[in-house]
Amino acid sequence: MGTKIVIVGGVAAGPKAACRVKRLIQDADVTIIDQDTLFSYGGCGIPYYVSGDVSDEAELRSTSFHMVRDEDFFENAKGITVKSGTRAMAIDRKAKTVKVQNAASGVEEDIPYDTLMIATGSRPFILPVPGADLDGVFTISDLHKAIEIKDRIAKGKVDKAVVIGGGAIGLEMAEAFKDLWGVKTSVVEFMPQVLPRIVDRPMASMLTKHMRDNGVDIFLNEGATEILGENGKVTGLRTAKRTIEADIVIMSVGVRPRSEIAAEAGLQISPMGAIVVNERMQTSDPDIYAAGDCIEVMNLVSGKKFYAPLGSLANKEGRIAGDNMAGIPSKFKGAVGSFIMKGFDVCIGATGLSLDVALAEGFDADVALTAPSDRAHFFPTESIVCFQMVFDRRSRKVLGLQGFGPMGDGVSARIDAAAGYISMGASIDDFGTLEMAYAPPFSAAIDSINAVAYVADNICDGRLRKISLDSFLDWMDDFSNEPNWIALDIRHPNEAGPFVEKFGFDKWLAIPYNEIRRRYREIPMDKTLIILCDAGTRSFEMQSFLDSVGTANTFVLSGGFNMLRRMGVDWYPH
Amino acid sequence: MGTKIVIVGGVAAGPKAACRVKRLIQDADVTIIDQDTLFSYGGCGIPYYVSGDVSDEAELRSTSFHMVRDEDFFENAKGITVKSGTRAMAIDRKAKTVKVQNAASGVEEDIPYDTLMIATGSRPFILPVPGADLDGVFTISDLHKAIEIKDRIAKGKVDKAVVIGGGAIGLEMAEAFKDLWGVKTSVVEFMPQVLPRIVDRPMASMLTKHMRDNGVDIFLNEGATEILGENGKVTGLRTAKRTIEADIVIMSVGVRPRSEIAAEAGLQISPMGAIVVNERMQTSDPDIYAAGDCIEVMNLVSGKKFYAPLGSLANKEGRIAGDNMAGIPSKFKGAVGSFIMKGFDVCIGATGLSLDVALAEGFDADVALTAPSDRAHFFPTESIVCFQMVFDRRSRKVLGLQGFGPMGDGVSARIDAAAGYISMGASIDDFGTLEMAYAPPFSAAIDSINAVAYVADNICDGRLRKISLDSFLDWMDDFSNEPNWIALDIRHPNEAGPFVEKFGFDKWLAIPYNEIRRRYREIPMDKTLIILCDAGTRSFEMQSFLDSVGTANTFVLSGGFNMLRRMGVDWYPH
Repeated sequence: MGTKIVIVGGVAAGPKAACRVKRLIQDADVTIIDQDTLFSYGGCGIPYYVSGDVSDEAELRSTSFHMVRDEDFFENAKGITVKSGTRAMAIDRKAKTVKVQNAASGVEEDIPYDTLMIATGSRPFILPVPGADLDGVFTISDLHKAIEIKDRIAKGKVDKAVVIGGGAIGLEMAEAFKDLWGVKTSVVEFMPQVLPRIVDRPMASMLTKHMRDNGVDIFLNEGATEILGENGKVTGLRTAKRTIEADIVIMSVGVRPRSEIAAEAGLQISPMGAIVVNERMQTSDPDIYAAGDCIEVMNLVSGKKFYAPLGSLANKEGRIAGDNMAGIPSKFKGAVGSFIMKGFDVCIGATGLSLDVALAEGFDADVALTAPSDRAHFFPTESIVCFQMVFDRRSRKVLGLQGFGPMGDGVSARIDAAAGYISMGASIDDFGTLEMAYAPPFSAAIDSINAVAYVADNICDGRLRKISLDSFLDWMDDFSNEPNWIALDIRHPNEAGPFVEKFGFDKWLAIPYNEIRRRYREIPMDKTLIILCDAGTRSFEMQSFLDSVGTANTFVLSGGFNMLRRMGVDWYPH
Repeated sequence: MGTKIVIVGGVAAGPKAACRVKRLIQDADVTIIDQDTLFSYGGCGIPYYVSGDVSDEAELRSTSFHMVRDEDFFENAKGITVKSGTRAMAIDRKAKTVKVQNAASGVEEDIPYDTLMIATGSRPFILPVPGADLDGVFTISDLHKAIEIKDRIAKGKVDKAVVIGGGAIGLEMAEAFKDLWGVKTSVVEFMPQVLPRIVDRPMASMLTKHMRDNGVDIFLNEGATEILGENGKVTGLRTAKRTIEADIVIMSVGVRPRSEIAAEAGLQISPMGAIVVNERMQTSDPDIYAAGDCIEVMNLVSGKKFYAPLGSLANKEGRIAGDNMAGIPSKFKGAVGSFIMKGFDVCIGATGLSLDVALAEGFDADVALTAPSDRAHFFPTESIVCFQMVFDRRSRKVLGLQGFGPMGDGVSARIDAAAGYISMGASIDDFGTLEMAYAPPFSAAIDSINAVAYVADNICDGRLRKISLDSFLDWMDDFSNEPNWIALDIRHPNEAGPFVEKFGFDKWLAIPYNEIRRRYREIPMDKTLIILCDAGTRSFEMQSFLDSVGTANTFVLSGGFNMLRRMGVDWYPH
C-alpha cells in the first residue's frame, strides 16, 4: 500500500475527504476513525427522522442508491478502512501517529500516518442549569439520541415537549414533535426573536407567527433557569416567567467546535476554539488537515473568520481537503453562510450577513424590504414572498438577503442566486439586473430579487425614506409614542375601510393610489405621514409624487401590509 | 410641465421606462405611443391565457393589485399620457419630433420630444411558405391574436392544432392546446431537436419524450413546406414527410427586431437588424434611447453582442433607460440569456451558452452531465434532476448550465444561481463550492449544482473519460457501429438483470459497484468498456479504480440511466 492517510471523524467532512483522496490516489491506505458505531449519516436529517418523514435511521446512513454506509460498504465499495467505536486520544506529531482506544475493549493502539485529517465536528453546548442531566433531556448530537427520542415518542411516552433554543434545529424539532406526533410543544428562546443573528426581527416574526398558528408555543426573551424533574426524570422547565410541563426537553442552544485533540497537539486554535486552517484546509502543521464543524472559515462578506458549522460546508471542505491531501491545490475561499429552513407550510432562508451582524461588523448597513409575488401575479399558483436585502450604503455592496415565503423552492432559489452573487461582491445594481430565468409559472418579469434591489437602490440614493416595521409597530402600539403622525392608506377602499373605521379618519387617512394625484391637497401638511400599501411599491411612487408637491414629511412602510399581516399584529381589524 | 419625454412602444420596456423616469422627474411630460389599443400586457402569459390558467386577458394587463393598466390608469396613477391606437411613422431628429398617425382617424401629428425612447419590440418571423396567409394561421404577437385563438377553441372550432417551431413559445402553446383543451396537437421543428441553441440534445430529448408521453406529437427534422387550406381556411400542414390535418396553425419560428423607424432615422443598426445601444441604453443619437426586443445586448459570456428578446430583460433595460433619461448613470452590462419553461409535469431551464453555441463561438468547450437527487435523497419529496454544465477547458470558466426536472422551482433555483455566478465569471471551482442553502427539504448537502461542477472538474483535469449520450445511443443503435465495446453495468443486480438477459453477458457485463474491487479480474482487458450506473457518479469511481489496476480503456456514461430513461430509448428492456 502507498501513503497512509488517517482521518479522525466519520461524518460529512471526514468520509467525503476519505473517498475523494482514495479516488485520486488509488493505492493510498485510507483509514477513518470514529468514536461512534453509527457514522457517515446525514445529521441534518435527524428532525425528519424524528418526525417520521424519514422512517428508518438507516436511510440517513444510506447512499442515494440505497446502500448503508457501514464498515463493509467503505471497505468493499470505497477501499477505505473504518475503525468505528474507536476514539482518537492524542496525536504525536513527531512520531506521526494517532493514539486510539477501542471503546468496547479499551485496547489502545498507535496508528501511523503520513497525512492526518481532523474532522471531529462539533458538540452541542450544554446550558449550565440545574437538571440538565435528568433523564429525558436530550441534545441533537448523534443518531443514538435521535433513535431514543423517536422511540420514546413512538411508545407514547411523550405528551409534552419543550425545546430550549429557537435556532434552526430547535424549530425543526418543534415542528417534528407537533406536526407529525401531535405532541404539545413549546420553544423557549432567550433572545427577543427566533433565529437570532441568522435573520432579522421582521422575518423571524413571520415565522414565529406561523409556528404559533400551527400550535407551537414560542416564548421569546425567556431563558431556561432550571430543568425540573422527579425521580431523576424530567417533568418540566422553569423560566423567569413560567413553568412549562414536559416529558422531554431538547436542548439546542448551539454547538462548539470539538478541537481538543488538535489543541493538545499544539495546532493553532482560534479564540473561540476552532481549528485554524488555510485555504487548502491545512492546519498549522502542514501534514495535518482539518475540515467541517471543528474549523473556522473565512466569511466572504465580512472578510473575517467565522464559525459556520453546516453540513453542506463540511462536505465541500472535505472534498478540498481530499484534493490537497492528494496534491491537487484546490482552494476553499470561504463561505457566506447560506441557510434555509422549513417551518410547517412556510420556509425561511438567508445568506450573507443579517442587519444586526452587518452593523456589528462595522458596515454602514441598511435594509430594503418588499413583499411581491413570487411569480407572474396572474399565474394561478402565485404567492407573496417577503425579502429583505442588507446592503452597505457606502459601497452599494449587497451584504445579505433574507426571504420568507410558502414552502417550496421559490425562496431558496433567490437565496441561492444571492449566495453566489454576494460571494463575488455583487452590488445593489448587479442585483437589479440579475437575470432570473423568467416564465410565468416560475417568476415575474421583474423578479422579487430584482424588486428588493430596486428598493435598496432607491433607499441608498436617498429617494425612498422609510420607517422600519419595528418603529411603526411601536407607534401603533401606543399613539402617544409619536403623536404627530397619521397613516396614508393608499390601498383599495375595501382594504383601507376597516382601518379607517377602527382608528378614525384623523389617524388613518385613506386615499386610493390612483386618486392621490388629484386629491393630494386633502393631505395635512403639518403631520408626519406613513404611506401604506401592500408591499411598499405604490407607497414609494406616491412619496415621490408628494415630494414634488411639497409634502415632504412622508415615510414608506416597506413590506407593507403583506408583511404586517404575516407578522400578526394585534391591532389588525377583523 | 418640464422636459418632454416620448416613448414609442407600450409593452414591457416602454411602460417600465416611462414609470421610472416619471418617478424620478415628477414634472416631466411623459407620453407613451402605442399602435395597439391593448398595451402594457405580460406577453409571456399568452400561452397561459390560451390554456385557461389565466381566465381573462385583462389579468395580463393588470397590476399585482388588480388595476387594469389602461389609458386612465397611466393618467391617474402614473401621471403618464398614453396615446394608444397611434402609430409612430417617423422620427425627425433635427426637429426632435415624432410623426404619429391615429389608426382610427388617420390623423397625423408631430409630437415634440426632448428625449425619445424606442421600445418597438419585435415582430414574429413569417415563414415564406404557401398558405401562410390563410385564415386560422396565427402568430403569437399580440393580445388580439391570443383572444381570437382562445375564442376559437372555446367555441369548439379547434380539434386539431399544428405548431410550427419547437421553441419555447411553440411548446408552451402546444401544451396549452393539449393539456387544457384536449386538442390533438402536433409540433413541427426543422432542427433535429426542440429548443435549438437554447439547450443541447440530451436535455431537449427528455422534454420531447415527456411531451410525447403527454400526447403532443413532435416531428423533428421536418420543416413546413406548405400550409394547406380550403375556401381560405387552413386545413393542414405539409412537410417533406407527411401531411398533418389542422384547424389552426401557430407559427412560432422566432422574432425579428422592429427597428425600421430607427433605421429610417439613421440610427445605428446591427447586421441582424437590432438597434445598437450603449450600456446606458442610448442609441447613436444621445437624445434617443432604446430598450427591449428591438435592441441587441452584450452577451456576458461570449463578450459579443447578441439578440435576446426576453420580457424579463426588457423590463430591466427599461428601468436603466428610465434612470438615464433622468440623468442617473445606471448601466446595463449585458445578459446571459436565462431561460425556463414548463412542459406539463416537468421543467427545463438554461443560462449562458449551450455547447453548440459555445463551440460556434470558438470556446474550447465541453460538457459535464449528471442526474442526482434534487434534495436530500432520504427526504420524501426527493426527485431526480438532470444538469448539464458547459465549460471552457482552457480557462475552467463555466459557460452555461442546463437543467431538467420535475415541475417546481428546483431547476430554476439552480439556473438562477448559475446566472448571476456565470455573469461574474465563475469557474468550475467556484461552482464546486457554491453555497446553496441546505436543509433536507430543499437540497442535498452536496447540491446538484456542486455535483455537476465536480463532474466538470474531473473531466477538465482528465480524470474522467466519458462517452457522450449521443455516441452511446449510436453504438446501441447498431452494435456494428463500434463492435469492440461492452457495457459494464455496476448497478444492483435487479436493475442490471433485464439488460444482461436482453443483450447477453458478452455485451452487458454486470458486476455490482461494491464488488468491483474484488472481481475486476472478470473484466476483459481487450474491450472498450462503457461503465454504466444511474447518474455516472459510481461509474467514475470505478473508472478511477480500474485505471489503477490497468484497465484503462473505460468510458463513463455521464447522466447514466437516469437520463437514458428520461430520453426514452427503444432498446430499453420492459
